[in-house]
Amino acid sequence: MTGSQLAGSPAAESRFGMTELDDLPEDLRERIGAIAAKSGFVPNIFRALGHRPAELRAFLDYHDALMDPPDPPARDDADAGPGGLSKAERELVVVATSAANHCLYCIVAHGAILRIRSKDSQLADRVAANPWQAELTDRSRAIVDLALALTRAPEIFGDSDIVKARDAGLTDDEIWDVGAITALFAASNRLAHLTALQPNPEFYLMGRTPRA
Amino acid sequence: MTGSQLAGSPAAESRFGMTELDDLPEDLRERIGAIAAKSGFVPNIFRALGHRPAELRAFLDYHDALMDPPDPPARDDADAGPGGLSKAERELVVVATSAANHCLYCIVAHGAILRIRSKDSQLADRVAANPWQAELTDRSRAIVDLALALTRAPEIFGDSDIVKARDAGLTDDEIWDVGAITALFAASNRLAHLTALQPNPEFYLMGRTPRA
Amino acid sequence: MTGSQLAGSPAAESRFGMTELDDLPEDLRERIGAIAAKSGFVPNIFRALGHRPAELRAFLDYHDALMDPPDPPARDDADAGPGGLSKAERELVVVATSAANHCLYCIVAHGAILRIRSKDSQLADRVAANPWQAELTDRSRAIVDLALALTRAPEIFGDSDIVKARDAGLTDDEIWDVGAITALFAASNRLAHLTALQPNPEFYLMGRTPRA
Amino acid sequence: MTGSQLAGSPAAESRFGMTELDDLPEDLRERIGAIAAKSGFVPNIFRALGHRPAELRAFLDYHDALMDPPDPPARDDADAGPGGLSKAERELVVVATSAANHCLYCIVAHGAILRIRSKDSQLADRVAANPWQAELTDRSRAIVDLALALTRAPEIFGDSDIVKARDAGLTDDEIWDVGAITALFAASNRLAHLTALQPNPEFYLMGRTPRA
Amino acid sequence: MTGSQLAGSPAAESRFGMTELDDLPEDLRERIGAIAAKSGFVPNIFRALGHRPAELRAFLDYHDALMDPPDPPARDDADAGPGGLSKAERELVVVATSAANHCLYCIVAHGAILRIRSKDSQLADRVAANPWQAELTDRSRAIVDLALALTRAPEIFGDSDIVKARDAGLTDDEIWDVGAITALFAASNRLAHLTALQPNPEFYLMGRTPRA
Amino acid sequence: MTGSQLAGSPAAESRFGMTELDDLPEDLRERIGAIAAKSGFVPNIFRALGHRPAELRAFLDYHDALMDPPDPPARDDADAGPGGLSKAERELVVVATSAANHCLYCIVAHGAILRIRSKDSQLADRVAANPWQAELTDRSRAIVDLALALTRAPEIFGDSDIVKARDAGLTDDEIWDVGAITALFAASNRLAHLTALQPNPEFYLMGRTPRA
Repeated sequence: MTGSQLAGSPAAESRFGMTELDDLPEDLRERIGAIAAKSGFVPNIFRALGHRPAELRAFLDYHDALMDPPDPPARDDADAGPGGLSKAERELVVVATSAANHCLYCIVAHGAILRIRSKDSQLADRVAANPWQAELTDRSRAIVDLALALTRAPEIFGDSDIVKARDAGLTDDEIWDVGAITALFAASNRLAHLTALQPNPEFYLMGRTPRA
Repeated sequence: MTGSQLAGSPAAESRFGMTELDDLPEDLRERIGAIAAKSGFVPNIFRALGHRPAELRAFLDYHDALMDPPDPPARDDADAGPGGLSKAERELVVVATSAANHCLYCIVAHGAILRIRSKDSQLADRVAANPWQAELTDRSRAIVDLALALTRAPEIFGDSDIVKARDAGLTDDEIWDVGAITALFAASNRLAHLTALQPNPEFYLMGRTPRA
Repeated sequence: MTGSQLAGSPAAESRFGMTELDDLPEDLRERIGAIAAKSGFVPNIFRALGHRPAELRAFLDYHDALMDPPDPPARDDADAGPGGLSKAERELVVVATSAANHCLYCIVAHGAILRIRSKDSQLADRVAANPWQAELTDRSRAIVDLALALTRAPEIFGDSDIVKARDAGLTDDEIWDVGAITALFAASNRLAHLTALQPNPEFYLMGRTPRA
Repeated sequence: MTGSQLAGSPAAESRFGMTELDDLPEDLRERIGAIAAKSGFVPNIFRALGHRPAELRAFLDYHDALMDPPDPPARDDADAGPGGLSKAERELVVVATSAANHCLYCIVAHGAILRIRSKDSQLADRVAANPWQAELTDRSRAIVDLALALTRAPEIFGDSDIVKARDAGLTDDEIWDVGAITALFAASNRLAHLTALQPNPEFYLMGRTPRA
Repeated sequence: MTGSQLAGSPAAESRFGMTELDDLPEDLRERIGAIAAKSGFVPNIFRALGHRPAELRAFLDYHDALMDPPDPPARDDADAGPGGLSKAERELVVVATSAANHCLYCIVAHGAILRIRSKDSQLADRVAANPWQAELTDRSRAIVDLALALTRAPEIFGDSDIVKARDAGLTDDEIWDVGAITALFAASNRLAHLTALQPNPEFYLMGRTPRA
Repeated sequence: MTGSQLAGSPAAESRFGMTELDDLPEDLRERIGAIAAKSGFVPNIFRALGHRPAELRAFLDYHDALMDPPDPPARDDADAGPGGLSKAERELVVVATSAANHCLYCIVAHGAILRIRSKDSQLADRVAANPWQAELTDRSRAIVDLALALTRAPEIFGDSDIVKARDAGLTDDEIWDVGAITALFAASNRLAHLTALQPNPEFYLMGRTPRA
């Protein structure tokens, strides 16, 4: 947490306390430990959900099924070939829907991942500032528009949104990916709002410089 | 599906097709088969998610962790004792948040379950019509208000919402239950909107009459 | 009123008291008595407005002029032939506009009448849950879209809404019917909100089963 | 209608045609004729509704019951004594709710009447520009706030709105007046939006100068 | 300020006090003095901003650059010829954006100027009541629609708004004029809201009668 | 501009073209040249406004009067002493209001300046993600809440907003600063939306690392 004169003294990282890695059941300790080993720190979301292992386990399973699909498209990131969304595109959906929901944790954490996956140091900030009008390729715009249509006013989501996505070349499998990721982060954003979850400091700078 | 002169000929139950029970992996077939055996039909949500078994499995795990907690409070429904929300209260959260999101499937399906769990044949219709003003006990109103605060404008959810919930007597564990269920159905509602999911006909009448 | 553990002990049927049939002026007593004789109970709206007979009389006159026109179309319900909206279509307008306004009394009471007039036991619940996306015939959808356009943001109602209705085959007389019924229930919904009017218990189940 | 270079050539006074006084049934011809004799012209609303005499008759009855109550309070305008709202206060409700609904006809026509009834040449323009913040006496502010609460988001109208009105000294009879007038003009505004009704030119200047 | 029984005793003209002409720096005293000499009074906005001369000076410079361009189009008001917006069209933008922002001072003051510049005594009241649907020439409507698109939801302003304006015949220079005036009055409206600024009484009647 | 596979090939920096420093009138060339010399590049906003020198000059004057006041408070940044807002606090207002308006240019450019002025590398990202709930000192929160109240729904800005600011210890001079800066950036944001203005690449990283 920061401690500037404007932001004040450090507040809690989460409204309902954090669970340390060592206090998790073994399967979760190993699974999250592997993530921590790779990124150098334990992302705060796991510590915030840790006091409810069954919920955290289901959350991780759901997350991995959508964000780390077992059979990833055998192609470069951001390629629009058959096989579903690229990993960068999946993060683009997360940043866009989290921006529309003004979710601090998800914007900062997944903004960092989007910078890395897209190899673009500005894209995440641009989508976070204004997902509706950020300049994107036609395919990326169709993906983001579909996510936004489902994010804030799902009651008017309808056939015309599906038709627009198909007209932009998205397959039904890709439409499902966009919709399901948007749905998962509708939940994830709200868990972060519920807990007033703060991003780990490392996320803010990650992917901004060639070696950061 | 209905076929009246106003509603027209039957449309699809889901925008992206349905998976039958026999085509699911064995663990899901058994798990959903048990639900079908109990209720007499396979709720459409399972068939709509079935073509992505990993997502369906995570969804079921998440759902069960929150809606069927392993150690249920040893008390009557709607009792406000220690141990978290009663099962009826959990369904109340679902109907309220689904009403605010205008999610047909969740309103009708969980409205039916709320009628059964609350032993109140009108409550679900009243909450579905207007969750903000439906007449409730103070405790139920606090639960619903907390869910609604997180549903439509999560960006302004803050300490004052937590304080109001605590002032109404909710424990932090119960606040988490309300928030986590609201988050899960933020996702679930959007999956239903994505797929234009139709409720099974049986749900409409369930719990409305002593023996229905 | 219900008395479940979640909904609490019975509250008032109306915020400002109810007037019994016997205390109404003779013309209103006869007129509402005839309705009560037919349906088996006095709909609460009449008792809630009864302390202001001149307002109740004008309300009834307006209601009958639009919902029970003196020269009804000589055709089956829900038929789209010349002569204006069918009675089922008129109730469809009421349920859609009341759903958009979240008016408990009108959704439940007119939902019951819509079930009876449309001979469709699910339509009212589907329109009440989500009037914007409920599956309907093209004609019914055009009727509901016109009503919704005038309900929540009348300041942007304009020529394009009229053109869409005409393109869907509605005559100017039918467009007037939809608009005027929407206007009347903009008033009626607000009277119910003003008085926190509760539906008669009978409405909840009416028209749901072959003989209910 | 105007014909300036910005506004273009005169458009229709109403989207669905106008009925002249001579073509109305005798009772309506006499009743509206009396109004025309007094004001010097036939207000366009009557001509726009004239092709449906039963609806016009009910509208007039409802209007008169609320805006011209048979036993008016025996006191000066704007006096807060027993007997309900003064006639100026009733017009204040109309202008406030019509402003929130951006209804051209009702703002201009009832703005003129409010100028006359309140003997204040600026009040109507100030309430029309911004009903939420126009400077008013505490009583007038309570009246307008109650009307606004019911106008745009009736689904969240509740006990707290009633309490605020009572705390400001409004009797339940006066609260009913405010609510019922707001409801009537929720309908009236929408009839004007439906018909794209234009105010008579005379209304624009009426009551602005000592002798106008 | 008015003092009717509904509006109460006169309130302050501005929330933070007013600066008189004689207390301004010499350049501002001369500049505003010239305006006062022409219109017969000192518009309240200048007195409300006067305690911060540098801000007032920049505001006046910005205002004059857009509302009184140094090389005005050599043509009649409201003419759509080359050279940018006419002065009447510029005032039309101001009244439309101020109406959407419900800014009392700007609606009344610039409504008066629009009446004079357009030689149309009704146009300002019509645009103020409902800028989205007021009847206008196609060119005026395109101007107003562009202004409105930028006024309330600037985050979704995009290429399609520009295309619509160009399709209606607006040049890029005219589009800039509309956008820049809308931007300036986004600021001006908020200064008036900040200070609860009251219009000078003279503005209410100006331009309404041939000699007023 | 970026050129990743998701963001596509570089688009224009501004919708209506850019004016180079050498093509500006001498006073503006010198003035903006001094800014460029200090920061190492010409901020794009000046090049986007450059084709209208009078507007750019007034914009700069207004900006400097509020963001670089001639007599700055002789105290450390973020100090709440007499003399108005600190420079860091002024930038906080800009980032908060630009975040609420989703203005890419202002969020990125003034986010960079806020990082430098506040010596806090995370604050700008946190306020940009969610200005309503970002954790701040009580004084900073009061400043941001006042700005937000005036940003999106100025029509309901009123005495209660002023009272809350005063209760938090803001002087009337500071309230004016907050309100006037919010007003200026209501304009500035819309100029950026009008021109689809892109931030200079340098802004994205500025102030994020000790020496960046």
